[in-house]
Formats: sequence, C-alpha cells, structure tokens
Amino acid sequence: MKNGLRFAVLGAGHGGYAMAADLSLAGYEVNLFNRSPKPIEAIRKRGGIEITGEAVYGEGFAKVKATTDMGEAIGDVDIIMITVPAFGHEFMIDKSIPHLKDEQIIVFNTGNFASLRLGHKLRKIGKKNVLAETSILIYSSRITGPTSVFVDGLKRKLPIAAFPSKKTKEVLEVLGNVYPQLIAATNVLETSLENLNPIFHPAITLLNAGLTERTMGNYVFYKDGVGPGVGRTIQAVDDERTGVAKELGLRVTSTTEWLYLMYGAKGNNIYEAIQNCKPYLDEGERGPKDFHFRFVTEDVPYGLVPIASLGDLLGVHTPNIKAIIQLWSTINQTDYFKEGYTAKKLGLSGLTEQEIIKLATEGSL
Amino acid sequence: MKNGLRFAVLGAGHGGYAMAADLSLAGYEVNLFNRSPKPIEAIRKRGGIEITGEAVYGEGFAKVKATTDMGEAIGDVDIIMITVPAFGHEFMIDKSIPHLKDEQIIVFNTGNFASLRLGHKLRKIGKKNVLAETSILIYSSRITGPTSVFVDGLKRKLPIAAFPSKKTKEVLEVLGNVYPQLIAATNVLETSLENLNPIFHPAITLLNAGLTERTMGNYVFYKDGVGPGVGRTIQAVDDERTGVAKELGLRVTSTTEWLYLMYGAKGNNIYEAIQNCKPYLDEGERGPKDFHFRFVTEDVPYGLVPIASLGDLLGVHTPNIKAIIQLWSTINQTDYFKEGYTAKKLGLSGLTEQEIIKLATEGSL
Repeated sequence: MKNGLRFAVLGAGHGGYAMAADLSLAGYEVNLFNRSPKPIEAIRKRGGIEITGEAVYGEGFAKVKATTDMGEAIGDVDIIMITVPAFGHEFMIDKSIPHLKDEQIIVFNTGNFASLRLGHKLRKIGKKNVLAETSILIYSSRITGPTSVFVDGLKRKLPIAAFPSKKTKEVLEVLGNVYPQLIAATNVLETSLENLNPIFHPAITLLNAGLTERTMGNYVFYKDGVGPGVGRTIQAVDDERTGVAKELGLRVTSTTEWLYLMYGAKGNNIYEAIQNCKPYLDEGERGPKDFHFRFVTEDVPYGLVPIASLGDLLGVHTPNIKAIIQLWSTINQTDYFKEGYTAKKLGLSGLTEQEIIKLATEGSL
Repeated sequence: MKNGLRFAVLGAGHGGYAMAADLSLAGYEVNLFNRSPKPIEAIRKRGGIEITGEAVYGEGFAKVKATTDMGEAIGDVDIIMITVPAFGHEFMIDKSIPHLKDEQIIVFNTGNFASLRLGHKLRKIGKKNVLAETSILIYSSRITGPTSVFVDGLKRKLPIAAFPSKKTKEVLEVLGNVYPQLIAATNVLETSLENLNPIFHPAITLLNAGLTERTMGNYVFYKDGVGPGVGRTIQAVDDERTGVAKELGLRVTSTTEWLYLMYGAKGNNIYEAIQNCKPYLDEGERGPKDFHFRFVTEDVPYGLVPIASLGDLLGVHTPNIKAIIQLWSTINQTDYFKEGYTAKKLGLSGLTEQEIIKLATEGSL
C-alpha cells in the first residue's frame, strides 16, 4: 500500500517544500500546489526539490510535481496536506471543493481550529471528507533556494486527531506509516489547544512592540524579548489556555512542560526556561519585521480568539488573552474578536460542554 | 496679604524641592515635610535650598524649614501643598488629620482623583477643609544635590479646581497671586482627567516591557519607545479618556492637542507628533528601570483604573485601558482593578451623571 499513496501538499512555503520533498523521498507520489505560480516555477521546471537536513526520509533530490491547478493537484490523491498558515485554510478548502472526493483525507498541518470551522462548512454542502489536524507542523525548515529546502528540526511526538475523532484511528492507520511521530490526540479541540504559537507569539511581540517597530524585528525574539515580566504574561495566557482545555476534559501540555520536554530547558518559570533554551539564544529566531506577520495575523484570530470565545462559552475567564487580542486589534486596526474563529464560527455557540465534546467525537449532535 | 501666607510642602522629591524653594523666593514662609529624615537632613542643617533654572521666582538660595514632624510642618500654615506621587496621598492626609485646621487649603499637585477619594474621607470625620488639585505638577525639575534643585520647565497654563468646585474661585483668589499660570477648571473630575501621564506612561512602558527588562530602561522613552502602532494604542487610550470626560460634560485636552500646544509638535498622529517633539528626542527621558516605577505604580491604579471604573459607571467603553490594566496586573502580580481608585472608592458608585456632577460642584448630593 505504501507506494500506492498519493499526496497533495497545498502551499509552497517553508513547510510545504519540506513536506513535499520528504514525502517524495519516502516513495509517494506528491503534487505541490501553490496559489501563485512564481514561487513554484523553478520546481516545475526542475521537476523536484533538493532536501537537506534532518527530515524523516533523509536527504537528496525529490521528484515533486508543482502546479497552480487545484484540480490537477488533488484530483487523484489520497491525502491532502494543507501547509499554509491558518489565514489560508479557508481559501484552500474553497478552492478544493469542486474537485474533492469523499474518500480523500484532508490534514491541516497545524490545526488552528480549522477542522471544526471548515468541517462544518463541508458538511453543510454535503461533503463527507474526514478532516484531521496536527497541533503544529512536523517540520522546522527553511527554503534555501528556488528548489531547495533545509530541515533543521522535526517534532519527535506530534498529536493528530480526526474530525470527528472516532475516525482518528482510521487516519492513523494510513498516516502513521508515513510519520511514525504521530500519536492520537483526544479530538481536534485538543490538537488545536496544544498549539503553543498563540501562547508565545502575540504576547512577546506585543510586549516588544516599540522595539519591533524601531528595529524591524532585529533582535533575538525569545532571548531579548522575554524578561521575567514578559514570562509572567506568557504564563497567565498559558494558564487560561490550559483552563479552557481542562473544562473540555483535555489535558494539554503546559508551556513550561513543553520547554522542558522539547529543549531540555531548566528553570523555575517560563522566563528562566526560555533563557536556558539553546535554540532560543544568540542564534535564535529574530523578531517579526512588522505586525502583519503570522505571529499576530495568524496567532491572534486563529489561536487566541477561539480560546477566549470557548472560554466565554464554558465560563472560563481569559482576561489576559482578551487584553492581548484587544491591543492587537487596536494596533493593527482590525477587530480580531470579530474576524477571528469565534465559538460561533466553529459551530459551537449555545452548546454545553457535553455537546461540544460529542460534536468533536461524533461529528454531529 | 502676600507675605502673610505660610505654606507647607509635603514630600521632598524633585517637585517638592522646587516648589518649596520657589515659594520661599516669592517671599512666603515654607515648611518642607518629608516622611523619612535622610533626604532632608542637609536642608535642615543648611536652612534652605539653592534653586536654579526657570522657576517662577528666579534663582538663588531660598530659606526653607525642613522637618519630619507633621504637626510642625502644617500646624501654622495657610496652604498645604502635597507634591508626592499619588500612592503617597493617603499617607499624607492620614498623617495630617490630627493637626488639620478647617481653614487650611490642601492642594494635590497632580490630582489623580485624590480630592474625591480623600475629600470623602475627611468629610466623614468632620473635617471641612477645601481641597484643590492641579492636573499636573507645575514644575519640571530635578534634584541636583542634597540642597539644590534645577527647574528645567514650568507649565504655562495649569488647570486647578477645588473640591467642591464652588470654592474654586476662592482658592484661585489666594493661589492665583502666587502662580499666575493657574486657570480655573470646571471641577476636580476635569483636573484629574486632564492628566496625560496615565495615557502615555503605562501604554508605552507595556509595549516596551521586554526592552525595559533587558536594558533596565536604557532607551529614549518617547523616541525609541513609540512607533506607529504604539502611537495608535496611545490614541485609543486617549479616546477612551476623552469619551469618559465628554460623558461628564467636560472637554479635556486631547493628547495630540497637548503635544501641539506644549511643544509646538507637528504631525498627523501621536507617533508623528512625538517624533517631532524636541524634548522627547535624543536627550529625552530614559525608560523606567523596572516596573515598580511611577509610570506603572502611580499611573495605572490612580490614573487608568478610575477612568475605566468611571467609564463602567457611565456606560462608556474603555477596552484598551482595561487591557493595559489587566496586563500590568499580571506583570506586577497586583490586582490594580481592585487596588486602584475605583468609582466606588471615589464615593461615586450608584450615582447618575447628574449626581456625579452635582457632587463635584457642591461637595454633597
């Protein structure tokens, strides 16, 4: 069966390049779709991508078919991997709809509540696809040339859930052969709530907004941007996230646990743990160039807003998350409370905790 | 009458030094009170303060009697000038009570809602003093030695109001001779709402929290700390303040108007105006060393909290102010919503707009 699987990877960003190449080296047929032709022109001409670094299936030249035609990209595949940021999820689904076949599995590589939001939409028009999502992208990678990508890290354990979650086992039977790192999450609420990007990025960027504007992000994001007070803010945001998860019967990894597990960090609090994380230090990621960057435009509306809105629904207070959403709304002159994935947009308004859990498990009430 | 007036200045900080010396050069008797003896020991020994710079009454050595004995400080005076930050107001009033005479006028030099808060307290125990407050301290000054102070600026126009405001004329008849800069404000809500420190300081410090922690404030506060997005945040906070004032029938100076008037600044928004303010640029004030600084510990509980709480009472939304209070509460592990001057602590809860205005004018309902 292995060599029989065909994949479409939607989105030719850092993650899409890595995933398309790696899946190809694993022996699968891979189509790489991108909305605009320019980023994939060279791949189309050369017929593939050179992958180096620590991917699952090694290094080398990987045959990949690049296309801007969605029908061509997904028409014959078994699995559709979406690797664009959350603000591109709906576009990809809308564009896919005319070509979707019911047996195709769609995987959001970083859930950001897309399964609930777009599953609802697909259901409405009679599509029966199993959706699935991971809590984060498996690859940490960067494009190093028009047809080359370097993978500098791979998640060791990666939660995945199908929507509805009674199909998770089914999805894992197929995808677990491809990515042995995948483990079953309880449901798509858990995968979405496991994502720590919304916990780190909007708070750190906000509390360094003046510096970001003045230096265009020319500082070491975690090392320079996180002092003890910034750490306390991240902790408060994290407590609100884990509080919402707990109310839904989910036990998600806390930020400090994650820092300990992922990086062997030490320290009594988030600030200390971050200052002890080697990848965060001098060679670490720079700050965002401006505020129209994923750290805000993805992590606020698709990360923090659903947590706050779920909190309201469940009676869990999220004052720090709301404060951060409010200030980003002001700074970016965008009402993220309205634009973001609210519980209503997730199809959850008016539901009880039990009903939400049932919906996540069964796909309907 | 002029030479007959006797003053007590409570608080030997930068402002207290300048005010005590300047009033003395104007020909008045001045006692300078300080809680702890050390800061005023040298003044006590030398018998006065050397004042230089641009004070109202010139430069020179000014005779000032320094004391840590509140009875001695205020026992015989006509006017009690309080020059400590807002978090010291209540201490000064409590310490004064046993020695207060009904005819003495108490002036909070930077109101921060102290008249309403502490007027209420004095009334309760039968004290009939007229309280008054300015929107900000008249002097911009710094202590340059144990017995010397330099005044680098003076407010050209300074609103003052008595509590109750029907007494403002009376207060101005006395104090207007001393400070010709004083003009009558509508009431103490106006003077307190005219103060722009709570509009600038907590927002800028918050949006530079990471930088502040890393550099211990070693950046030029306004120039380095304010980019376009930070400017939009200040504007939003300012709009909420002017909205609350408007609901109370008050028209307070907007932040941009103030930048234009005070510094001849130009620009289409707060960011541009600040970047065109000479005193804010390279030689300007540095950031706070840490977060237990007046920019937070005074301006949040005594500046932003009363505005937010008044907004709640009046039905005026203040989401940005509340977001800033929330995040400072988290960072400083202090519930400023609770610790600050709420409408309840100001004796206003349950009152209508008309009743609030009547209370400010008449001193009772």
